[in-house]
Amino acid sequence: LSETLEKALADALGPRAVTTEREAFAVNTRDWRGRYKGEARCMVQPTDTTSVSKAIRICAAHSAQVVPQGGNTGVCGGAIPDRTGKQVILNLARLNKVRSFDPIGNIATVEAGCILAEVRRRADEIDRIFPLDLGSEGSCQIGGNVASNAGGTGVLRYGNMRDLVLGLEVVLPDGRIWNGLRGLRKDNAGYDLKQLFIGSEGTLGVITAAAIKLFPKPRASATGFVALPSNQAALELFLRLRSVCGARLTAAELMSKRQLAAVCQHIDRAKSPIRTAAPWYLLAELNDTDPSADLRRMLESVLGKALEDGLVADGAVAASSREADAFWHLRHSVSEANVRSGRVVSHDTSVPIASVPQFIERAQSELSAAFRDDYALHFVGHMGDGNVHVVAIFPSTHNDSDLACAAATANTVVHDIAVSLGGSIAAEHGIGQSLRDQLLRYKDTVELDLMRGLKTWLDPAGMMNPGKVVLPNGGPRLT
Amino acid sequence: LSETLEKALADALGPRAVTTEREAFAVNTRDWRGRYKGEARCMVQPTDTTSVSKAIRICAAHSAQVVPQGGNTGVCGGAIPDRTGKQVILNLARLNKVRSFDPIGNIATVEAGCILAEVRRRADEIDRIFPLDLGSEGSCQIGGNVASNAGGTGVLRYGNMRDLVLGLEVVLPDGRIWNGLRGLRKDNAGYDLKQLFIGSEGTLGVITAAAIKLFPKPRASATGFVALPSNQAALELFLRLRSVCGARLTAAELMSKRQLAAVCQHIDRAKSPIRTAAPWYLLAELNDTDPSADLRRMLESVLGKALEDGLVADGAVAASSREADAFWHLRHSVSEANVRSGRVVSHDTSVPIASVPQFIERAQSELSAAFRDDYALHFVGHMGDGNVHVVAIFPSTHNDSDLACAAATANTVVHDIAVSLGGSIAAEHGIGQSLRDQLLRYKDTVELDLMRGLKTWLDPAGMMNPGKVVLPNGGPRLT
Repeated sequence: LSETLEKALADALGPRAVTTEREAFAVNTRDWRGRYKGEARCMVQPTDTTSVSKAIRICAAHSAQVVPQGGNTGVCGGAIPDRTGKQVILNLARLNKVRSFDPIGNIATVEAGCILAEVRRRADEIDRIFPLDLGSEGSCQIGGNVASNAGGTGVLRYGNMRDLVLGLEVVLPDGRIWNGLRGLRKDNAGYDLKQLFIGSEGTLGVITAAAIKLFPKPRASATGFVALPSNQAALELFLRLRSVCGARLTAAELMSKRQLAAVCQHIDRAKSPIRTAAPWYLLAELNDTDPSADLRRMLESVLGKALEDGLVADGAVAASSREADAFWHLRHSVSEANVRSGRVVSHDTSVPIASVPQFIERAQSELSAAFRDDYALHFVGHMGDGNVHVVAIFPSTHNDSDLACAAATANTVVHDIAVSLGGSIAAEHGIGQSLRDQLLRYKDTVELDLMRGLKTWLDPAGMMNPGKVVLPNGGPRLT
Repeated sequence: LSETLEKALADALGPRAVTTEREAFAVNTRDWRGRYKGEARCMVQPTDTTSVSKAIRICAAHSAQVVPQGGNTGVCGGAIPDRTGKQVILNLARLNKVRSFDPIGNIATVEAGCILAEVRRRADEIDRIFPLDLGSEGSCQIGGNVASNAGGTGVLRYGNMRDLVLGLEVVLPDGRIWNGLRGLRKDNAGYDLKQLFIGSEGTLGVITAAAIKLFPKPRASATGFVALPSNQAALELFLRLRSVCGARLTAAELMSKRQLAAVCQHIDRAKSPIRTAAPWYLLAELNDTDPSADLRRMLESVLGKALEDGLVADGAVAASSREADAFWHLRHSVSEANVRSGRVVSHDTSVPIASVPQFIERAQSELSAAFRDDYALHFVGHMGDGNVHVVAIFPSTHNDSDLACAAATANTVVHDIAVSLGGSIAAEHGIGQSLRDQLLRYKDTVELDLMRGLKTWLDPAGMMNPGKVVLPNGGPRLT
């Protein structure tokens, strides 16, 4: 190796593909929330799969570690390099061609760097939807969505990103390209290799393109916002909606009273459509491909009966799509409202749906025992997925060290409860670097050994996004 | 090792768990169609997961290869031992406890040996469905369904078995038990290990239990049977149904004229509900959780418009559930009718949905060039999945060697066409032993290397169901 890594990359990919000035890629070395800050040796931005392959081979030859990065919208530090300044950021933003949109197969084949919102817009143009629904849709990229098995508000009806992927193209840690970009609804020809890479957060290879499922566009919609006397009532209302509305039920989003109050306090044009104060709120949405479906009547009928039965304290059904947007505005503004409320420690837990009320009660009581009055507690989540985000808000006067201390306590409390109920510490955001050591606390030896074995098999040199998700065999273990 | 394998197994699991007399397990050494016939050293039938673990450890200590077996309903020889008489059949039939049915989470947790029909019956009792819909439901077992990623007629709406699995319990090739039996709708806490075992056909471990998804029970239904002038018209009708009916469309089953004629000729109570002769037929079913949904009207409206547009030649909508059953009787009798028609060579190909007409035309023309008039050609399949079974029927006078020769030719013709259209040679039945060498023909080196690497990583001794799906690294390759 007579030449530097940077020169080899520039020679192979062209000088514009390699950025070596630190200021030019400073934004790529930290996450948008400012929680993780790393350094990098350089940033590579290939425009095609062959270039990704070349870049990986060159990095391997120089023993340089690679951090794949999409839209950098993650919250677990999964796309941020470490602090050594020796890692290479492999940014996929320019690998962003739409390869095909197939309205018959209902399949889009898109490169990793395609922006989610753009893919959704293109689907809309051909009268289809791509149902992955994330607050970050304007920045996040399909490759990152696949690598993190993204969730969001459409999971109840359409599944996680894993369920939306039919095929993948991946550059392996040895630089070879695996072409598994098949658009088939059924394929049992050997092991389903794409599953290895979905949700692996860039630690096993670089996803360069995906064949994803489109769906018929809904032609009718109804959105309701209801106040509930208890989270148990929220669960029961969800069960009724699921039973009657079936696949029409596309969202069932839970919010606690304090969460809604924070949104209304801090966010422009945020106003609860309900006057009745209640401890819990549920936003429910129905959709149907049949334009003549009377979904408002269906929703009102379920809600009316629930009102009679005392399950619902009050409710509003949107009279127009503008009103529905206003309801959703409340939900989509949660993260921003929380950041404005103080210093945020949030969790991404899931539990079996039946355990949601118990999970909430226990989190409430144990956090309040741990923190007394020195914090505010917000709950927001996806009722139908059992995915409740517990958000503890500490005073703005807390410094970083106070906050780190509070976060450690809150994590242990919340994660212990979730796992004791058969739940997960990472429902939809992933592990990244933030939860890697928590994984060691909650996974048993067999499962950790399998994860380490998988990492070691596919990436024996430990070159791909090291330090994220899990350390390979032989790596340090938590003591 | 001072004692024999058989004695060690009997000592650890009890004498009733081990069968050594060959006649007593003869039926377990061959498949129901009589295509594969092996020998085995003994058959083990554990009743709990710990016993499976013990059995695997004992077999490993004795270097005995293990062939896991469920209901033995497969068609690719995946559960049949080889002819050496040295392998151990691990039959899961007695590991058949229902661990839980959770109507809130819509999750059933069942052991591998539970019969599919029984699981479906139990779901029905609590007002839910388990939507995996296979002709073999009365014999096949959940463990086998998971291990083979079973398909069937419900895939269009509910997905393959892979999509229906939330968690797994697996005994690894080293005898350790991996407990991944979580009933969570969202879980991104590290690599999704269950995906490794789903569809791996017993080659990577033994699935001992699964947490599977239940769904709300449909309360309204409509079933239609239509005659179509062309397979292109069948595709277009499917697209119209998908667009309007959305998730209501639960089945769209295609049948060729000769296939329907064979069913009507050979099967009791099989009668086409349509008098108009046409080259193609489609059975379509709609379902809805809303009891007041007028699905007959919806179906008739789409079919009526299609009739006007010349897409449909004739059609019948079932007036009662009995009539709907009669329509389905035609579809479910296909395998039996084909066996009675002559000597069968069938295929399990899938292609992108848009390519179904082209696939059929090419298969028809190339097979007819290969076999002239010496055969009959039936098509039956799942239009919405692009999964068309090409069934070539040869005269009963063909002996085994004639048939093997014809099968080799037909396989090459049909598989070449499917793969050239971006399709798969194994859509829903799996690879087993029957397609293992075909896999070598159609998969590229990178994909085969990954499959071999996965096998070698998880089962370094090559102990689990050897010879099925793929050979490990270092095994012989096709020349």
